[in-house]
Order: sequence, then C-alpha cells, then structure tokens
Amino acid sequence: MHMIPPPPDSVRLCIHTITTKPWAIEEAVERYAAAGVKGITVWREALAGRDPAAIGTCIRDHGLTVVSVCRGGFFPADTGERRLKAIDENRRCIDQAAALGAPLIVLVCGALAGQALAESRKQIADGIAAVLPHAAAARVRLAIEPLHPMYADERSAVNTVSQARVICNGLKSPWLGIAVDVYHTWWDDHLEEEIRASGQEGTLFAFHLCDWRTPTVDILEDRGLMGEGCIPIRQIRGWMEQAGFKGFNEVEIFSRRRWATDQTQYLEDIKTAYFADV
Amino acid sequence: MHMIPPPPDSVRLCIHTITTKPWAIEEAVERYAAAGVKGITVWREALAGRDPAAIGTCIRDHGLTVVSVCRGGFFPADTGERRLKAIDENRRCIDQAAALGAPLIVLVCGALAGQALAESRKQIADGIAAVLPHAAAARVRLAIEPLHPMYADERSAVNTVSQARVICNGLKSPWLGIAVDVYHTWWDDHLEEEIRASGQEGTLFAFHLCDWRTPTVDILEDRGLMGEGCIPIRQIRGWMEQAGFKGFNEVEIFSRRRWATDQTQYLEDIKTAYFADV
Repeated sequence: MHMIPPPPDSVRLCIHTITTKPWAIEEAVERYAAAGVKGITVWREALAGRDPAAIGTCIRDHGLTVVSVCRGGFFPADTGERRLKAIDENRRCIDQAAALGAPLIVLVCGALAGQALAESRKQIADGIAAVLPHAAAARVRLAIEPLHPMYADERSAVNTVSQARVICNGLKSPWLGIAVDVYHTWWDDHLEEEIRASGQEGTLFAFHLCDWRTPTVDILEDRGLMGEGCIPIRQIRGWMEQAGFKGFNEVEIFSRRRWATDQTQYLEDIKTAYFADV
Repeated sequence: MHMIPPPPDSVRLCIHTITTKPWAIEEAVERYAAAGVKGITVWREALAGRDPAAIGTCIRDHGLTVVSVCRGGFFPADTGERRLKAIDENRRCIDQAAALGAPLIVLVCGALAGQALAESRKQIADGIAAVLPHAAAARVRLAIEPLHPMYADERSAVNTVSQARVICNGLKSPWLGIAVDVYHTWWDDHLEEEIRASGQEGTLFAFHLCDWRTPTVDILEDRGLMGEGCIPIRQIRGWMEQAGFKGFNEVEIFSRRRWATDQTQYLEDIKTAYFADV
C-alpha cells in the first residue's frame, strides 16, 4: 500500500543554523562542511552584525549550498501602518537573502491573537502579494510554511498545507510555494493528498525535519531529533519524493535540551539519525 | 455574515469538576449549587472511593443536573489483550455513569505514539463498536471528543470533528455522538460546516468551553478562562445553536495557575466570564 522509500541521499542533508544555535554562523559553516553536510539554511538571527554577501561567499567556499533563509512573514497586524511595516521588513529580508545568495525565504506567516483566522489569512495573502514583485526582481522564492495549529494564536493563521495551497493558487506566481515541515503537518489526515496536489501545482519548495517528543514539555523549544518521536518521517519523505520534490532534507530542531549539550557530538547524532530515521 | 448570538442562558451553565480540582466532589456540588450553576460534569477521578449512586443522589438533591462523565476512551494499544482491557474499562465506566445517573460519557479516544494514526482510528472505531451495546443497554450515550492535534501522539488520534463524524457515520448508533470543545477545534477552518453537518446527523452531544492563552506555557494544564484568550467562543456557540444544539455550555478548564487560587473567587470569575465571553 504505502511505499516506504530507502534511506535518504547524503547529498540532500541540510541543517538549519538554529539547530546548532550555540555555534556562531562561521563555526556552524566550518563544522557542517567538515561533517560532510551539503546544505545550510541560515536564520536571520545568525546574520546579526554580519555582511550577508561575505557570509554567502564563506558558505560557498566551504562547499555548502545556501538552501534558504529563515524567516520572513508575520504579516497580520492591527493597523494598516503596522502591516506596511511588516511588508517593508519582508522586502529587507528578500534583499538580505539575495545578498547571501539564498534562492528561498521561508515565511512564518503570522497571526494576531483575537483577530479572526480568516482575516489574518487575508492579510497574509495581501502581504505576500505586496512583496512578490520584489521577490521576483531579486530572484528569491518565498515558501509559506504551514505551522501546527498550536501556533494559530500568534505565529501563523496558516495551519495546513491545504490553506497554504489556497494562498498559492490565489496568487499564482512561480516565486511562491510551500515549505512542508513534518512537525507541523504530520497529524493531518489529508497530508498525503495535499502534498500530491502541491507537487502537481509546482509549489513544493522545501521540506523540514525533526520529531515530536512524548511528552512535549515546551510548546516551542522541545522538538525531537528524528527517531526520538512519533512522526512517520520516512513515509512523509516518500510522499514528498513521489510528488516530485528533489530538494534538500532540512533538519530544523529547536531544543533547549540539545542546545545545552556538546554540539559536535550532536552534529554526529543528527547525521546518524538522518540515515536511520529520515 | 456571521450572526453572533446574545449571551448564553444561565440555566445552561455546567462546570466540570476538574475545573475546580482542589474541591472534593461534595464541596464542588455544594458550591456550584449555591452559585446557581445548573449542570455538573463529573470526572472519574472525583468519584474515587465514593459510591456513584450516592453521589448522583447528592447532586440531584442540590438541584443540579449530571451532564456527563469524563472520561472513557483510550482504545488504541499495541496488543489485542490490552485493547480488550481498554474495552472492559469502558464498560466499567458505563456502569459507573449509569449508577451516577449520567446520560453521557465523554471519550478521549486515545493514540499510541509510533502507531499510524489511521490504525489508531481503526482501533478506536472497533473499541467503540464493542462497547456500544453495553452503552445502549445502560442508556448512556458516548461522545467522541476530537482533541487538538498537539495531543495526537498519545491522547487522541481523532483530532477534528470531521474524523469524529467518520466514526459516527460508520457505526450509526443513536448512542454515539460528538463532544465539541472550543479549545481543541477553534483553529479548524472547516469547523462551522462540520458542526452544521454533525447537527444534521444528530450527533452534537456536548459543548466544552475554555480559552487559549498566549503564550501557552504548558501543553496540558494552562488553559484559560473564557475571555482570557483568542478563541471566538461566542461565534462557535452560535454555530452550535444554529446546528440545533440545546445542551449545556460546559466549562472545562485545566489550569495549574487557577487551581492554586481561591476556588470560591474563581467560581465567581467563571460566572462573570460565562455571561461576558461565552
């Protein structure tokens, strides 16, 4: 019935800088490259005080590919002025991504506690529409990342691949697609068909990995290493690949527990888990 | 477009014993009655060491209606033997509800971390099918409560009203329906239509209330009092009533923060919040 794919290609392993948050970006680049990691997704926080163009050069000089920048978005707000400010901030993010040489920005779309989710989704679509010309001119793609419904209060009013597809289909741009994160979407009984549909629409732009720990003791920073939890990661990767996705498998783990450990050992654990459980 | 209903009837206010967990059930009954609360949902923990028939009499003597018993369920397990044990436990729960004089049991259906959610849903449907004759004989209805997707690891593989309807429509029994809890379902962009469909199918058995706090600091026990969070409670109540629901509005709040406060004042706050925000 369900075809489970073989272990993933080593050349498709990408790590998000936030995963090894204790490392400055220069150290992360060096360590990832030495460990044979091929892709890096750069969190904007990691660029603070740096020249993005120089960091981009440093990354490429180490043989790594910049997969994406995390993160733009956060479009909903209670006044038009604040929404315009968010749009400006997203344009700056696009400029930064272009300077870094990143082909993609992940969008955590935002939500406003107390505002109807449907209204927030409208503001998200309007915000994305406003920045798309800038993204196209900079040749930087945007990927809507549906977040788990437990973040619907203030992080994202887009909580399913289905809702992300509605926005993509409304705006119809080759510069706009979807980032599927197993953590946010694994529970969705429509996930397989939504991934297939997104693949047919050409919007499968990114694939993020971690695991769901039981119990989860923190709503934000207790994600698990692949294999530590209950998410059928390999099955979901199979759905992505059957739908035509050929991009990186991006390890994005927020874990206070792991950040407190030796990051060099952790990087080895990530590689082991990647081949065993992705 | 959306009709927002007027404040709710005082005669439809019900409180779950877990909401005022520091009170023993005898004290809860007395305090609720004195405060003019009309309904009570009894958690099984509150019955420990008590004769349920005597508690039922005590509740009715205070002018309160027993709305339901929380909770049965937890059907999925890794062996057939354990699944049979869960079924037996649900039959005992039905006996207890019948002795108490409760017309309804709320089912937290269960999940098994690492087992496919579809398989767990099958085991849930099988488990409910196995206990339905016992429920019908005891004249106790069962309500599937879809839980928030953040509980899909080990509390419930039923995470949307849509999935609960699939089970109800598969088993087609007047003794089986759905408990809609705003905390678990508010994020769902199909909620209004799912409530309407459930109403047409005659399965809207219960309605639970609390709010979603920002930030939520505990995945289990940081629920908010109505009005403290972002859930459009009154709008959802409107959907329930438009769909024909005429039952109690049940306040079910797990809150370590609130449990640590004076429960008499808290009960007053609940009443105030009920009229202002439900």
